[in-house]
Amino acid sequence: MTSYQHVTPEIEAQLRNIVGEKRFMSGDTIKPDYSHDEMPIYGSYMPEAVCEAESTEEVSAIMKICSANKIPVTVRGAGTGLVGGCVPVNGGIVLSTEKMNRILGYDMKNLVVDIQPGVRLCDLAADALSHGLMYPPDPGEKTATVGGNVSTNAGGMRAIKYGVTRDYVLAMTVVLPNGEVIELGRSVCKTSSGYSLLQLIIGSEGTLGIITQLSMRLIPKPGMDVSLILPFANIREAVAAVPEIKLANLDPQSIEFMERDIVDSSAAFTNNKIFPTVVNGKEAGAYILVTLVGDSEDELTLKMKRLGEVAAQCGAYDTLVVWTDGLKKSVWSARSAFLTVIEAEEKMLDEMDVCVPVDRIADFLMFTHDTAVPYGITIRSFGHAGDGNLHIYCCSNDLEEDEFKKVSKEIMDKCYDKCREFGGQVSGEHAIGHAKKAYLRESVGDTVYSLMGAIKHVFDPDGILNPGKVCHDI
Amino acid sequence: MTSYQHVTPEIEAQLRNIVGEKRFMSGDTIKPDYSHDEMPIYGSYMPEAVCEAESTEEVSAIMKICSANKIPVTVRGAGTGLVGGCVPVNGGIVLSTEKMNRILGYDMKNLVVDIQPGVRLCDLAADALSHGLMYPPDPGEKTATVGGNVSTNAGGMRAIKYGVTRDYVLAMTVVLPNGEVIELGRSVCKTSSGYSLLQLIIGSEGTLGIITQLSMRLIPKPGMDVSLILPFANIREAVAAVPEIKLANLDPQSIEFMERDIVDSSAAFTNNKIFPTVVNGKEAGAYILVTLVGDSEDELTLKMKRLGEVAAQCGAYDTLVVWTDGLKKSVWSARSAFLTVIEAEEKMLDEMDVCVPVDRIADFLMFTHDTAVPYGITIRSFGHAGDGNLHIYCCSNDLEEDEFKKVSKEIMDKCYDKCREFGGQVSGEHAIGHAKKAYLRESVGDTVYSLMGAIKHVFDPDGILNPGKVCHDI
Repeated sequence: MTSYQHVTPEIEAQLRNIVGEKRFMSGDTIKPDYSHDEMPIYGSYMPEAVCEAESTEEVSAIMKICSANKIPVTVRGAGTGLVGGCVPVNGGIVLSTEKMNRILGYDMKNLVVDIQPGVRLCDLAADALSHGLMYPPDPGEKTATVGGNVSTNAGGMRAIKYGVTRDYVLAMTVVLPNGEVIELGRSVCKTSSGYSLLQLIIGSEGTLGIITQLSMRLIPKPGMDVSLILPFANIREAVAAVPEIKLANLDPQSIEFMERDIVDSSAAFTNNKIFPTVVNGKEAGAYILVTLVGDSEDELTLKMKRLGEVAAQCGAYDTLVVWTDGLKKSVWSARSAFLTVIEAEEKMLDEMDVCVPVDRIADFLMFTHDTAVPYGITIRSFGHAGDGNLHIYCCSNDLEEDEFKKVSKEIMDKCYDKCREFGGQVSGEHAIGHAKKAYLRESVGDTVYSLMGAIKHVFDPDGILNPGKVCHDI
Repeated sequence: MTSYQHVTPEIEAQLRNIVGEKRFMSGDTIKPDYSHDEMPIYGSYMPEAVCEAESTEEVSAIMKICSANKIPVTVRGAGTGLVGGCVPVNGGIVLSTEKMNRILGYDMKNLVVDIQPGVRLCDLAADALSHGLMYPPDPGEKTATVGGNVSTNAGGMRAIKYGVTRDYVLAMTVVLPNGEVIELGRSVCKTSSGYSLLQLIIGSEGTLGIITQLSMRLIPKPGMDVSLILPFANIREAVAAVPEIKLANLDPQSIEFMERDIVDSSAAFTNNKIFPTVVNGKEAGAYILVTLVGDSEDELTLKMKRLGEVAAQCGAYDTLVVWTDGLKKSVWSARSAFLTVIEAEEKMLDEMDVCVPVDRIADFLMFTHDTAVPYGITIRSFGHAGDGNLHIYCCSNDLEEDEFKKVSKEIMDKCYDKCREFGGQVSGEHAIGHAKKAYLRESVGDTVYSLMGAIKHVFDPDGILNPGKVCHDI
């Protein structure tokens, strides 16, 4: 049991002295937003103080004080997480990186950009494009910070072609819990130079050190892209097409799946009926959305033709080409609205973000539906068919919060068991936070969980950094 | 100072009992090969015993004995390393994985192959092709084991398009120093499920645990490829073309550089004069070798045309297309012979495998040549221009070993300093072993080096696994 100290008036004065009056909040001046992320069902916890840091030096100075006084520090980017990762479950201070939002510069010879961790994903993506470059990772939540993406190893829609956030981090500056500053990695793409502490920090959810600067790898901007909507009779037929599409050597940028109900809801919500519901007289029950990239129309035309053949063989009702900018915008705004739609339509929400082998997607989805029915819970889902990463929501408009939490937990327990049985991972991209800790432990087993805990202890012997998260028990 | 025990006759009997008579060697029956890798200048150290394991269970049983008796265990694949990584500097036993060489099966829905760690790179590559799939990492030493590749995070020639070994490991079985067996990762491509111990083990050179099974990601086999030789006046002009080629959006599979002297030696050695030495009356001083992949001749023709334009703008004397199988074989056998040629021509060899930013390659090569001249040492080099990973050899036919080691160390010291100044990494793909430990420490600094040591201690508190390597001092 770790014993933490509180933020006394003396410590408050020291912290205020570091970041200045405008970037320090305590007591009633703290906005309630700092007490939760975007999945409030996992609980709200107010910090005792909030510091908006602007530099590595400030973060280091803050950590020296908090370390000397055993005060918990929870780092927070944009607060768009879904597992309570940035929520200060033990009080103490929230260290916000939102003001560390500067793009520091491009190295066009090595295709690297240096940024502060609070740069938003959408801003980095747009800025890179204006330099003729692309930042490949494309998680759904565009207003997340890149530091948050690195801390959760966020994946996103383009992962099957380009990989995940982990694959684009070349170097970082990290402030250790005791305030010491270290540099990990270098702006080169290959290394075999000792244990990769860089890879260890990626996905560690702010529990080992605080990322204060990042060197991210970029690629030349692809010439053009095209999306194709493949309607199917049902989700089983839709996902059965995925391995065939992958084997057809089309190197798609993304393969997303969506069930009919969420497409209908999105259409009603956004007033955007881009996904056809009846194709050649047949009701579509599920869709696959494929995006191909290439350098010329000829190249893409060839790929589209091959995709059309594969789709037909797999029972797709049609292959609808989405080529113009207007249509693309419609499709992707419909896709991007899915979570918003669920949040709008459902009073109670709980989520899982498992990753299962591609050939288990349909079985897993069926299992979640079948499991939820007896409890009166609705399952809504969408996700990344190309890599088996599913976003599945337990939803209810009828149950009271306590009852909902109880039954949702029972459903979740069964589904995470099934995920393990199918050889899947607890989280594909949303990470563990405090909400999924028990499932992580079950998934990896006691020995691996203990090794994680021992590594946490190496970096943070007093357990002050984001306590109670991932593998840290308080 | 760790205190180790010796292999007593009793322990020998126990080990013999596990692997059987045929797969156990001790004393005079141990082949001298087990005392060194392919860079014998770093010293020869005989083990007390060698066990050729065939299964996870055997490895676990061996480790239980060695752990209980504090006997050092050094894991060895094919022994093709260049930094002494598999050399038993503290005696004890060598645990050979060469008999764990079975390809266990393909999952064609998820494009995954399960293998034992002793499968050779060339065998995995060929077998995957026979399934219509490609194992993308392509390190130069094709007879290395995949387990060795994972343990050093080997890179190879295709890294700029496909990434390195790290990017293809989905899951592994690991035997901990105490004999406990853990599973890391799953056969899915996305995860954010706690600290990535999988990524930590990759590149840890057998110092944290023993890999006994691997699930490796594959991709569909590309349709076709073509290589192009670009002769330049000198190495500076050659490598200056690299960023331009990368920005031209051709997504090349590899961009290699080679200096004229090594091309000449390779031509004489292999009797294969595929690289032109005089182009349009001008002597070529250096070359860039680019490989492009695509799905159709049309696609490749388009890309070749664009590459030709970029090459001309960058001062290439010509763009020589290598399309037929016979020519490709000539080019790549010439390229593959570089290290063999150096080994054949030079009595004394020492090497570095730094990775520097691409725009520093020429400066770094010039620096090594300039540094070596006063010592009477010849520098020979080749490497991966696309990612700045340079293989640089200090060579001599005149000096005695002691004198050579002394001057080579002085040159190396200066070059690794320069590499750090240029923002490079100590090793791009050969790793640290015991030969490069001091340079790793200088490169990462005391705090990071200590963190590595503390992580080593978490996994291996008695320091019995590959002692004296990476960050472990004996």
